[in-house]
Amino acid sequence: MVATQKMINELNDNSLYRTLGIRVEAATDGKARSRLRPPQDVCWPFPGQPHGGILFAFMDTTMAWSVLSRLDSGYNCTTVNLNIHYTHPAKGNEFTCSAWTTHQTGRTCFVRADINDSQGRLLAMGQATFRIIQMSLAP
Amino acid sequence: MVATQKMINELNDNSLYRTLGIRVEAATDGKARSRLRPPQDVCWPFPGQPHGGILFAFMDTTMAWSVLSRLDSGYNCTTVNLNIHYTHPAKGNEFTCSAWTTHQTGRTCFVRADINDSQGRLLAMGQATFRIIQMSLAP
Amino acid sequence: MVATQKMINELNDNSLYRTLGIRVEAATDGKARSRLRPPQDVCWPFPGQPHGGILFAFMDTTMAWSVLSRLDSGYNCTTVNLNIHYTHPAKGNEFTCSAWTTHQTGRTCFVRADINDSQGRLLAMGQATFRIIQMSLAP
Amino acid sequence: MVATQKMINELNDNSLYRTLGIRVEAATDGKARSRLRPPQDVCWPFPGQPHGGILFAFMDTTMAWSVLSRLDSGYNCTTVNLNIHYTHPAKGNEFTCSAWTTHQTGRTCFVRADINDSQGRLLAMGQATFRIIQMSLAP
Repeated sequence: MVATQKMINELNDNSLYRTLGIRVEAATDGKARSRLRPPQDVCWPFPGQPHGGILFAFMDTTMAWSVLSRLDSGYNCTTVNLNIHYTHPAKGNEFTCSAWTTHQTGRTCFVRADINDSQGRLLAMGQATFRIIQMSLAP
Repeated sequence: MVATQKMINELNDNSLYRTLGIRVEAATDGKARSRLRPPQDVCWPFPGQPHGGILFAFMDTTMAWSVLSRLDSGYNCTTVNLNIHYTHPAKGNEFTCSAWTTHQTGRTCFVRADINDSQGRLLAMGQATFRIIQMSLAP
Repeated sequence: MVATQKMINELNDNSLYRTLGIRVEAATDGKARSRLRPPQDVCWPFPGQPHGGILFAFMDTTMAWSVLSRLDSGYNCTTVNLNIHYTHPAKGNEFTCSAWTTHQTGRTCFVRADINDSQGRLLAMGQATFRIIQMSLAP
Repeated sequence: MVATQKMINELNDNSLYRTLGIRVEAATDGKARSRLRPPQDVCWPFPGQPHGGILFAFMDTTMAWSVLSRLDSGYNCTTVNLNIHYTHPAKGNEFTCSAWTTHQTGRTCFVRADINDSQGRLLAMGQATFRIIQMSLAP
């Protein structure tokens, strides 16, 4: 699957991303980049700071897009394992995540990702395995 | 801090838990248990299945409560690292998470957790380190 | 494969286990137990304490045996991912590791393990994914 | 501590590194690089392939050196958590590991590392937290 901008735009318009404030910006050749503008509802218990679980969902989503960017239509992926380290408190209104596939062997993909704030500071780093499955994306 | 039922009830009433469908049920002596009834908004891309990031937030939250259950008032904790394995697709309307502190050394807590569906099937397992910080919970 | 005591004895007699001081004691029904008596050569940089990498090898090995204990002859497994937390310094001459398979889906196995000292104190906890492969054990 | 070549040479001459075949080559400014030439004794169960636990010890060691490279004399570090993904079977006689500290906050260091074979292929990727402790290196 080549993730065209049109396709990305359509997929960005879903209930999960709206609820969490996620917006995928690019996904191509095993790399993906996305942006988080977290609504106040998910900034708890520290006001102005998205919950660590929101940052995780943001990272997991971006990683999945780095995998999807190299798949043919009719395939999707699921997270088998994700390990996240939180390096610094996440303060601010806007965050970016970069994810890149480091290796693929059979139907297993290995991925890394970083979350940064708008000053470029590293807030979280992750590495994961995804499993490629034969299944269409939600219509 | 002893997490009384009154305190748990008050804390359950926050915007994050409402958005994700989390409800802490018990937290005492380094063990915590909570329940997830995910709204459809966070069940994407597979209808009826909470996104893996929601399951992570559910696990992270429950783990934090297992740590908090042994802390004095005026202390809180933050996740340093969490490793999650997704063992089985999460289908259903209701899920439980059990978390238990396995060790504490200085201000570092080690925690494990399981997420199960209503039939008791293991859906996700995690282990984590939390750091105890001197800070009050959100008022 | 049913890991009989005879088979375990034969396999314990290999150069890796001798070098590191590992001895598998039991492996059946998805559970395995082994013992580490580390030679001084691998207790560095802290005399009397096996290096963390030796503890990891000890855990990885025991986990693999928990997987192998349920496989038919002609199958083996390899570690895809292992996450280890060191909860306490490992002091002493003898350590035990217990590993248990928590779930198997297709050819992917999920495993947890603990390392304890002779007083029963938790020294390390791990969780991992293994991949089942079609390959005989070394003759 | 500035890890001079003389200091690295002295430290390379220890029983653990000799047993496993590890040689640190450089450690400066939060980055470290080392080389593994595994003796046949630790290539089991697959002849010619170092055991995954040996690769882990190799990575853990190199990561520790990336942390040590920025510490003052009288300080050391211990691994709190290390997550390793094995991306490809490790075949060959010689492997390299690169480790880099991504962030330090208080006495906690976050580190990443890659292991490659002599063709540059990625064999394992890891991320970890280390804790800085007040203790001299073994004399």
